[in-house]
Amino acid sequence: MPDTISMTTGTLISAGKVNGTSVFNPVGEKLGTIHDTMIDKNSGHVVYAVMSFGGFLGMGEKFHPLPWAKLKYDDQKGGFVVNLDKKQLEHAPSYDSNVDFTWTPAYGQKVDTYYSMPLKVM
Amino acid sequence: MPDTISMTTGTLISAGKVNGTSVFNPVGEKLGTIHDTMIDKNSGHVVYAVMSFGGFLGMGEKFHPLPWAKLKYDDQKGGFVVNLDKKQLEHAPSYDSNVDFTWTPAYGQKVDTYYSMPLKVM
Repeated sequence: MPDTISMTTGTLISAGKVNGTSVFNPVGEKLGTIHDTMIDKNSGHVVYAVMSFGGFLGMGEKFHPLPWAKLKYDDQKGGFVVNLDKKQLEHAPSYDSNVDFTWTPAYGQKVDTYYSMPLKVM
Repeated sequence: MPDTISMTTGTLISAGKVNGTSVFNPVGEKLGTIHDTMIDKNSGHVVYAVMSFGGFLGMGEKFHPLPWAKLKYDDQKGGFVVNLDKKQLEHAPSYDSNVDFTWTPAYGQKVDTYYSMPLKVM
């Protein structure tokens, strides 16, 4: 079955297209790719984008939830830009890609707290 | 690679889990399954759920965008419920699953208009 929403005009994007989109830092280094998005059932808001980071053929790969509000889409780069460097990402909340993971409100708060901290130069 | 967000507690759901979720009408008839969601890049709102309807092995299948606000998640049914019957769905804006489709703001308006119409008993 082809991917039927090949493009959009305007501000809408298909969640299926968000998955697989690259994430860059402001200096253009690729940090990872979007694996999934987390939606609030009640409000219909996308709250987190889950970024895949590192690993090779699924080995050692980690998933990093990022607050959606931290991501800016850059048409020229063809991906999202977040104001994070790789070291900040290494210490951020994450989980292994090859384990089942239950998302809890407490985990979401941990993510929120981490990313609301002032970003230090490390 | 396993599906790593197997479940959540609280109100968040993974977009990857939304895809494939059944859609029922209020009397419990299955109308289709969610194929994708359309997100507003700027606001981070899920605006439409694209429901797959009909067809067999991809033949004759159609995609029906539904305003997200029309969908209510029902834990007991394990799916979304929309207040639509099959006839209303047959006349709703849709496109073939096996053609590339460009989503435009005008198409979104067509969907909005259709579903904001008073729903008649047909």
